[in-house]
Amino acid sequence: MAVPSRYEVIGIVGLPEIRNGDDLGRLIVEGAAVQGTPFRDGDLLVVSQKIVSKSEGRVIRLVDVIPSPAALAMARELGKDARLVELILRESRRVVRMDKGVLIVETHHGWICANGGVDQSNVDLDAASLLPEDPDRSAQALRERVRRLSGVDAPVIVSDTFGRPWREGLTNVAIGIAGLQPIRSYLGARDPAGHTLQATLLAIADELAGAAEPVMGKLNRVPVTIIRGLAFERGEDTSKALLRDPTRDLFR
Amino acid sequence: MAVPSRYEVIGIVGLPEIRNGDDLGRLIVEGAAVQGTPFRDGDLLVVSQKIVSKSEGRVIRLVDVIPSPAALAMARELGKDARLVELILRESRRVVRMDKGVLIVETHHGWICANGGVDQSNVDLDAASLLPEDPDRSAQALRERVRRLSGVDAPVIVSDTFGRPWREGLTNVAIGIAGLQPIRSYLGARDPAGHTLQATLLAIADELAGAAEPVMGKLNRVPVTIIRGLAFERGEDTSKALLRDPTRDLFR
Repeated sequence: MAVPSRYEVIGIVGLPEIRNGDDLGRLIVEGAAVQGTPFRDGDLLVVSQKIVSKSEGRVIRLVDVIPSPAALAMARELGKDARLVELILRESRRVVRMDKGVLIVETHHGWICANGGVDQSNVDLDAASLLPEDPDRSAQALRERVRRLSGVDAPVIVSDTFGRPWREGLTNVAIGIAGLQPIRSYLGARDPAGHTLQATLLAIADELAGAAEPVMGKLNRVPVTIIRGLAFERGEDTSKALLRDPTRDLFR
Repeated sequence: MAVPSRYEVIGIVGLPEIRNGDDLGRLIVEGAAVQGTPFRDGDLLVVSQKIVSKSEGRVIRLVDVIPSPAALAMARELGKDARLVELILRESRRVVRMDKGVLIVETHHGWICANGGVDQSNVDLDAASLLPEDPDRSAQALRERVRRLSGVDAPVIVSDTFGRPWREGLTNVAIGIAGLQPIRSYLGARDPAGHTLQATLLAIADELAGAAEPVMGKLNRVPVTIIRGLAFERGEDTSKALLRDPTRDLFR
C-alpha cells in the first residue's frame, strides 16, 4: 500500500500577551508542552513578527514621535497620521509607490511592503509596532533558545502578512529565517519525460509561512505554529535568499 | 488544558499518469481510499493544474503549432522556441513585460504569470500543456464528481506555481476554486486593543495552495493534496475574487 506523504500544522494556543524583554523561546517551549504537543525532532516553527517585535521592544508610542516636515507633507497627501508616516519613513530605504492612501516602501531589510511593516493591530491604542530590526537574527536567537530548552533544533521562520501586485488579499510570508533552506532548487533536474524543469526555484519558506497563517489568523491569539512531519531541507541561508536580485526583477 | 488548533496536509500518492478524458474525480477518490485516507467531511482538495489540464486534453503537440510572424519575431528576441511563443500569445490577453528571456503576460483568465501558464514539464518531450480553459469550472466539476462518488462535499482548489515581483522563488497559488471562500475578510473587525484592523483581506486560497506544494513537489508525482481538519469558510465565490481590481493595483 502506498504511504501518503503528509505533514501537520499545529498552532500553539494560550500564550500570554508578550512584552518587551519576555523570554519568547521559553514561553513557546512551555506553551507547546502545556497543550500536549511538545517539540519533536523534525519540527519547524513559524512565529508571527508581531510577538517577536514586542519581545524586542519594537513598539513605539505615537505620542513620542515627532514628524518631520516631509512626513507631514506626505501625511496630508495620503490622509494618514503624520506620526505613522514618520515611522514608516524611518523604516524605509525608499518609497516605491504612494497613491490612493497607500504607501509602499522598500524597508531597510529590502522587503517591499505596505507601510514598511509599521502596524497598529494587536498593540496598545496609541502605539505602533515596527518589524524586528534584523528578523534573521531574531529567528536564529529563537532557534538557539528553543534548542537549549527543548533539545530540538527546530528551524524558525519569522513571518508577516504582505500584499502583492496583481492578486487580491495578503499572504503570510517569511521575513526572517534560521535553519531552513528558504528556496528549494530544481536547477538542472529533469522530469520523467526528460524535460529540464523550467520553474526551478520554489520559495518553500514563504509557502510554509502561508501554511501557518490559517491557524494563526489575526484575532485567534495563535502567534506560533509548529510544522510537523515535513521533510524539508536544512541550511544556513537567511531570508536574504528570498530578496529578488533587482537586476533580475522586471518590476522595480 | 488548551486545545491546539491544527490541520493536516496529506498528499495522495500512487495516481497513474493522467490522460485526456480520464475520470480524475474517480482516480482521486480511489487513490485517497487506497492509501488509507478516504475523504472525510471537512476535507478540502488542492489539485495541480497539470493533471486537470491533461484530463481536459489541454496538451498540445508542438509539431502541430504554426507560429505567426509576431511569434517568430518575439521568439528571436527572447531566444525561445517560436511555437511556444505562439502558444503563449494565444493564451494571453496582453504582454505585461518581455525582457531577459522572460515573457510575462496576462492570461485570458486575468492571471499575470510567466509564459501564460504554457509549460513543458511533466508532459511528453515534444509537447506543452496549457492552463485549463476555465479552472473554476474544472474545480467545480471535480468537486461535484468527488461528492457524487464519496459523499463528501470537499472544496477544490486548482493550483499552479507562479512567480511574483520583488521576492525570489515561485509559490503555489489558486487559479481555480469551488466551494471555498477564497478571501477571508476582517473588514470592520477590531483587535483586543480596539484598533480597526488594517490588513483586512487574507488570500486563504493562495495560502492553502502554498501549503500543499511542499507535499506535491515537482518530481514527487503527488498532484493532489487533502487539507484536513482546518476550519475554513465555505462559499461560492470563484478564483476571480483573487484577481486584483486593476484600479486598486498600483503595479499594472
